[in-house]
Amino acid sequence: MTHPSEQSPPAGARARLHEVIFESHTPAGKAFDVALLCAILLSVLAVMLESVAPIRVRYGEAIRFAEWVFTALFTVEYGLRLLSVRRPLLYASSFFGLVDLLALLPTYLSVMLPGAQSLLVVRVIRLLRVFRVLKLVSFLGQAEVLLTALRASRPKITVFLGAVLSTVVIMGSVMYLVEGEKNGFDSIPRGMYWAIVTMTTVGFGDITPKTVPGQFIASVLMILGYGVLAVPTGIVSVELAAASRKGLNPEACPGCGAEGHDVDAVHCKYCGTRL
Amino acid sequence: MTHPSEQSPPAGARARLHEVIFESHTPAGKAFDVALLCAILLSVLAVMLESVAPIRVRYGEAIRFAEWVFTALFTVEYGLRLLSVRRPLLYASSFFGLVDLLALLPTYLSVMLPGAQSLLVVRVIRLLRVFRVLKLVSFLGQAEVLLTALRASRPKITVFLGAVLSTVVIMGSVMYLVEGEKNGFDSIPRGMYWAIVTMTTVGFGDITPKTVPGQFIASVLMILGYGVLAVPTGIVSVELAAASRKGLNPEACPGCGAEGHDVDAVHCKYCGTRL
Amino acid sequence: MTHPSEQSPPAGARARLHEVIFESHTPAGKAFDVALLCAILLSVLAVMLESVAPIRVRYGEAIRFAEWVFTALFTVEYGLRLLSVRRPLLYASSFFGLVDLLALLPTYLSVMLPGAQSLLVVRVIRLLRVFRVLKLVSFLGQAEVLLTALRASRPKITVFLGAVLSTVVIMGSVMYLVEGEKNGFDSIPRGMYWAIVTMTTVGFGDITPKTVPGQFIASVLMILGYGVLAVPTGIVSVELAAASRKGLNPEACPGCGAEGHDVDAVHCKYCGTRL
Amino acid sequence: MTHPSEQSPPAGARARLHEVIFESHTPAGKAFDVALLCAILLSVLAVMLESVAPIRVRYGEAIRFAEWVFTALFTVEYGLRLLSVRRPLLYASSFFGLVDLLALLPTYLSVMLPGAQSLLVVRVIRLLRVFRVLKLVSFLGQAEVLLTALRASRPKITVFLGAVLSTVVIMGSVMYLVEGEKNGFDSIPRGMYWAIVTMTTVGFGDITPKTVPGQFIASVLMILGYGVLAVPTGIVSVELAAASRKGLNPEACPGCGAEGHDVDAVHCKYCGTRL
Repeated sequence: MTHPSEQSPPAGARARLHEVIFESHTPAGKAFDVALLCAILLSVLAVMLESVAPIRVRYGEAIRFAEWVFTALFTVEYGLRLLSVRRPLLYASSFFGLVDLLALLPTYLSVMLPGAQSLLVVRVIRLLRVFRVLKLVSFLGQAEVLLTALRASRPKITVFLGAVLSTVVIMGSVMYLVEGEKNGFDSIPRGMYWAIVTMTTVGFGDITPKTVPGQFIASVLMILGYGVLAVPTGIVSVELAAASRKGLNPEACPGCGAEGHDVDAVHCKYCGTRL
Repeated sequence: MTHPSEQSPPAGARARLHEVIFESHTPAGKAFDVALLCAILLSVLAVMLESVAPIRVRYGEAIRFAEWVFTALFTVEYGLRLLSVRRPLLYASSFFGLVDLLALLPTYLSVMLPGAQSLLVVRVIRLLRVFRVLKLVSFLGQAEVLLTALRASRPKITVFLGAVLSTVVIMGSVMYLVEGEKNGFDSIPRGMYWAIVTMTTVGFGDITPKTVPGQFIASVLMILGYGVLAVPTGIVSVELAAASRKGLNPEACPGCGAEGHDVDAVHCKYCGTRL
Repeated sequence: MTHPSEQSPPAGARARLHEVIFESHTPAGKAFDVALLCAILLSVLAVMLESVAPIRVRYGEAIRFAEWVFTALFTVEYGLRLLSVRRPLLYASSFFGLVDLLALLPTYLSVMLPGAQSLLVVRVIRLLRVFRVLKLVSFLGQAEVLLTALRASRPKITVFLGAVLSTVVIMGSVMYLVEGEKNGFDSIPRGMYWAIVTMTTVGFGDITPKTVPGQFIASVLMILGYGVLAVPTGIVSVELAAASRKGLNPEACPGCGAEGHDVDAVHCKYCGTRL
Repeated sequence: MTHPSEQSPPAGARARLHEVIFESHTPAGKAFDVALLCAILLSVLAVMLESVAPIRVRYGEAIRFAEWVFTALFTVEYGLRLLSVRRPLLYASSFFGLVDLLALLPTYLSVMLPGAQSLLVVRVIRLLRVFRVLKLVSFLGQAEVLLTALRASRPKITVFLGAVLSTVVIMGSVMYLVEGEKNGFDSIPRGMYWAIVTMTTVGFGDITPKTVPGQFIASVLMILGYGVLAVPTGIVSVELAAASRKGLNPEACPGCGAEGHDVDAVHCKYCGTRL
């Protein structure tokens, strides 16, 4: 299972670089991660501020300069990341490697392809950089519990979403027939948009039933959504409870080494050894 | 309890047909189910697209042709289903048998009864076809757990809905008296519609209280709804927890009779006896 | 503790009457309760329909006649209830006795005090009759569990509502200062109404922040409300779980008769007797 | 760990004063606390009423007089609090000491700095007085459980809020690009405000997607928010369950060491030993 190349200790410089960039348990690594976090937040803030018309008019030059500085910094960082790992291609093709690259490209592309529209799209992709920050967080045990619970809930949530979407298609069609074009329900997809807005209890009010039967059907859908809203919450609660219960008894069986015993377990449930 | 006719093995051809159409554990059965799923989704998509005015004007002919092709396919499929089961009447009168038939009739009816209105109603019934897809999903153990939890919650949810509807009737009447016709509350049913929109936290904003006492009563209703929203969620959470606990391991320890063991448990966690 | 008058068996006729009117375990008692339920629902429906202007114009006479018939029926029923109990005053001053009386008075009062306004108020009080229906339901064990859970949650929910109301007062004042009269926040109570509409995620949209700082504060309040919404749900879930767990072990201790043992209890937790 | 000054018994008068002002287990202490509670509520009510234009015009003089009376009362109370504690500086720099002071200053500042604007800000800070009321409540064990649960949930909620905010930034940018200025999405921060309004299911409807792709993206965001809403609820439910389980009875059985006994348990439910 272990490749010999992975067993060999990496070169000293590369190992130190790796420790600073990829790990956060050393003071230097922690400082690097915090600085990177601040730089990402500031660069996202710059993109956000540039989209506000009055700010763009007055500080557009300064903001665009800041964007180039951040892009230069992130380019250097991307290069160092490639240098510090033993298998640069594996990193480059990993999720965070791709996000790191995607966060750089837009600014460079904006030089070759001038034009307001494309520039804007570019900024949005750059915002994905925010996800890199979550990497730090994922070391916390709490995030693990949360992810475990969500992963375990996936099949139940899929079934549930299927039922919700079927309801949305049927209710959207019914409202299209009952209310019709003159009340804003001008197609089945529009009716489905309304059904989603209503079932999720968002309720924008941009499209609302005007006729008496339409308001009656809407009332039924809302009370239905009321009970339905309980299902995903219940699912996640139960999975979270299971995930944190697993985390409660940290000790492994002295007989077979198995983990995941309940708190009130007296004997290992796999080999019967007294815990 | 077992009928002799059910014990006798079905004819070879019919058994194979049954396996392909009704089961999904063989490669042929799986392929059939996936193809059916795609056909249903495409036919629903066609109905949805036809309702969009610009698309109907340009591609109306093609969409109506596709609808006839899908109807022909589903008719053949319905016939094969009738042939493949030993008791066709039992299938035809089952829930899915009726849905399968209802999904075919509208297109044929649209020939005998021309007219835009009736045609539209027809399409909506055809959308029920989506439910057939859930049949596949219902084999997943997770869906069973979900259904068990919902079924177990039914009495509690009924009591809860009774309390909610009583509140809706009283609050709807109070708002009708307090706000009156000039502020949109032009009848008690309209007031009840508003109360449902508010208690379920949908809040369209098409009807809103304008007077000071009306806004005060609305505030009380909203805070009440806040606490009330917790009840169905709590109910489903508890039932889901019970359902997934049940799903864990139903057998008691032969040594001490303790229950509540995990599915993968080999030994009783209280006394160590082999399960 | 037991009054001698309560020990003496009631007269045969009164006992039978009591069984029919107050109990529902005999066929006659069940038929009476179902008929009463239908009559109440129909009378509430009549009040609701009379409030709809087009229906009032056309069927106003018939509806008012029906209301008098229902009032006569309920008056006879109220008299029989007084006759059938051993202590009529105790019944008349109980919650359901008062509601029964309040459901009759409005129609009689409408004769002495003519006038549309007062008549309307009358109808609303009559709707309280709906609550009497819940009496039937309260016999279900499920409703007991629900009520136990809600009663147990009361102190936690009070603390929670106190925190919510404090937030509402402060946020309402802040928004009154930040947005001001020109954007609809024309007083602190109006700002509090908006804060409640927002925190409960109802979001009518009749008053919305227009300025940038106002929208920022509103965003913070919404995300806050997001997490806060979880608290009452969590409280009720936990209490419901506790209430249904209590309900699981129905047997009393053979030693001291205490109830409410956990399912996994081997010894009575009060006197130590083996269960 | 114990300072000698803390060991010395305080002077009799100061101790009695402390008992009345800071404690609520004596009749005098309870009366003081209830009176203070009423005075705070009345003073907050005065600030709220003064903000309503018609009331300010008619009763402005009386309300401003009442505000000065309350301020005088609270000033005396603040002085007594300083006198009654052994370490006045420690109290003055504690959270409630600072809030007590902040609740006094605005009225005095309004003399030196006349002007409607500053006066208004003053009133809002004064509303923080409401929090002092919660001090009473915090003695309830229930509030402790609630606070423990919230504190334990903090890391999970932080991770969760990080994920929510990332989604808000990306969705806000996407909607800014898709819908554009003409549909109300005139900057990325505005798009983020809309994304928060939508994900929290508030749904004001002041800004809504008008284009087909915009409504499609909004639908995805709403269904996403549907599932996401379940996470904080699940977290708090689980923590509340853990907190109330802990709050039950922290001591282990001296016989078998089993934990998780109810507070009112006298004997261990597993082995029967007296606790």
